[in-house]
Amino acid sequence: MFDLLFQKFDEKINLTEEEKELSRSFFISKKLRRKQYLLQEGDVCRYLAFVEKGLLRSYIVNDRGHEHITQFAFEGWWIGDQFSFLTEQPSEHNIEAIEDCELLLLSKQAEDEMLERIPKFERYFRILLQNSLIATQKRLASSLSQTAEERYSELIQSCPETLPHRIPQHMLASFLGITPETLSRIRKQLTSGKKAQPAKDKVQE
Amino acid sequence: MFDLLFQKFDEKINLTEEEKELSRSFFISKKLRRKQYLLQEGDVCRYLAFVEKGLLRSYIVNDRGHEHITQFAFEGWWIGDQFSFLTEQPSEHNIEAIEDCELLLLSKQAEDEMLERIPKFERYFRILLQNSLIATQKRLASSLSQTAEERYSELIQSCPETLPHRIPQHMLASFLGITPETLSRIRKQLTSGKKAQPAKDKVQE
Repeated sequence: MFDLLFQKFDEKINLTEEEKELSRSFFISKKLRRKQYLLQEGDVCRYLAFVEKGLLRSYIVNDRGHEHITQFAFEGWWIGDQFSFLTEQPSEHNIEAIEDCELLLLSKQAEDEMLERIPKFERYFRILLQNSLIATQKRLASSLSQTAEERYSELIQSCPETLPHRIPQHMLASFLGITPETLSRIRKQLTSGKKAQPAKDKVQE
Repeated sequence: MFDLLFQKFDEKINLTEEEKELSRSFFISKKLRRKQYLLQEGDVCRYLAFVEKGLLRSYIVNDRGHEHITQFAFEGWWIGDQFSFLTEQPSEHNIEAIEDCELLLLSKQAEDEMLERIPKFERYFRILLQNSLIATQKRLASSLSQTAEERYSELIQSCPETLPHRIPQHMLASFLGITPETLSRIRKQLTSGKKAQPAKDKVQE
């Protein structure tokens, strides 16, 4: 269960076997079936979740009832609402399993204790947050300034080859801010090597 | 020159006087006049900048020549392109002084050495990155799902009272993704207590 997590730790910090054993005790194993929620809007985000297996999405719903997907998380990634986790304020986010998932959950209290007892984790979380910040900054820049075609091309370049096939088309379209029909047209055009026409139907609110 | 920076350190970590003195040596002082650039698109972001005085903006320009402001940074904030800083790849961002600025610059090499010699800074940067991630996640969520009125209300609630008056109107409008005329209308309506009409003119690309 901890193989992937320990592999990720090893990429960033050097833990002794004793520290690894101790760190294990701070996590709670959790299985989610497809369509179950890790977090629902209005609840406090009590856990950051490391994805050992499966795929999740985080999304917000605006006042007009429209869903906007902010993030996907697959094996080896963390997901959670940092703001709610840190401040204990109700979250505006929903985090839903798109596939059956195996997660390792870390509560705020467990994280604080882990940082206190194994200060090396300050470095691990610093690097993790740096990578999350970079990914979120890229997502913001692309949502502000790119066409749907550019956002799609960047998505398939920046994620594992199999990922777009695991995500239902309407969710991929929601992430890109376009309709499923436009996504289908872009994919066909990119596959056939033709330059896609700029998408005119960016979802407006 | 280091008063505000040390005040920010003190809020997050406990440094000895010796460590403060040492940390000072990793920074380079830099003054920028209004309209000068800290970073231009295509260059590698060599420094993270702490703002002792003044105000800057970070923006991207898309293929169609449109500017999109991603961040403002004022006294006590850090600004830089984390992706370019970390990977040494050319940046897509421009960082420009909106007012005369006094900055403290930290290079990658200096940051690495500071973290090695004073490991407490792992914690400082972890907390800093956590706050930056929260701000960027909020900016992403609002750019995806909120109306211009909601984005404007959130901006004036979340920043110091004087800040909107320091930012030129056309830049504030660019940050919110609307025209200066719409911003002017929203401000008037909010001031007079009337509910603003939803802005229809979100800048489209």
